[in-house]
Amino acid sequence: MTDCLFCKMITGEVPCYKIAQSENFIAILDKFPVNKGHTLVIPKKHCKDFSEFPEEQGKEWIVFMNETAQKVMKAVGAQGYNVGMNNGEAAHQLVFHQHTHIIPRFDDDGLEHWPDSEASNEELAELAKKIE
Amino acid sequence: MTDCLFCKMITGEVPCYKIAQSENFIAILDKFPVNKGHTLVIPKKHCKDFSEFPEEQGKEWIVFMNETAQKVMKAVGAQGYNVGMNNGEAAHQLVFHQHTHIIPRFDDDGLEHWPDSEASNEELAELAKKIE
Repeated sequence: MTDCLFCKMITGEVPCYKIAQSENFIAILDKFPVNKGHTLVIPKKHCKDFSEFPEEQGKEWIVFMNETAQKVMKAVGAQGYNVGMNNGEAAHQLVFHQHTHIIPRFDDDGLEHWPDSEASNEELAELAKKIE
Repeated sequence: MTDCLFCKMITGEVPCYKIAQSENFIAILDKFPVNKGHTLVIPKKHCKDFSEFPEEQGKEWIVFMNETAQKVMKAVGAQGYNVGMNNGEAAHQLVFHQHTHIIPRFDDDGLEHWPDSEASNEELAELAKKIE
């Protein structure tokens, strides 16, 4: 797409720090990392978010994600990693070309998960009925 | 696995609120939701984390994740959603049977992403060289 930042990175029109690629995906370092080694895995073919993700590339994506995560973890000495996708503005998606974050994690790095609270069985039963 | 909470939910030994299933995956409501409709997508066959995820089920996972996310979003009236996986204790993985979070998001729901900071080109170039 003409105006898409990630499409331009894929063609080379905009520079980026590419660390790996497969037939249909690239992995680049995030310019605004949450932790050292924060990486984005991006499909080469434009799709706006996960709803348009090419399902036939699911197997390749799993393999590429795992290989990339292991390489990054080793390079930065991480003990774990989070995988994340933001879909839609409400979920803080900023670039509308689907991408998956790999965020290396270190013991006691201070990043806290969002607060949760226990739902009652009644609430969950009612909601499950509504969804099915 | 004998002592695995999610394996017990899959066999029915421990109750849960199942909202969808495919050949190899189930989707259940999280008992400790971050937002209403917080859902977990779990492979029926035990694997500890993403590194053991069955790659040949990648296509089925993409399709099932998307179908489930759309159903949940509709039921709770969400405007977007986050997808997340925590791998390893450092990344706050609590149950060591791989699972993927679908967290519905609402405009102005107040959930904030982790703080980031701009990395210099020198830092990124050096790191990219180390990873490749």
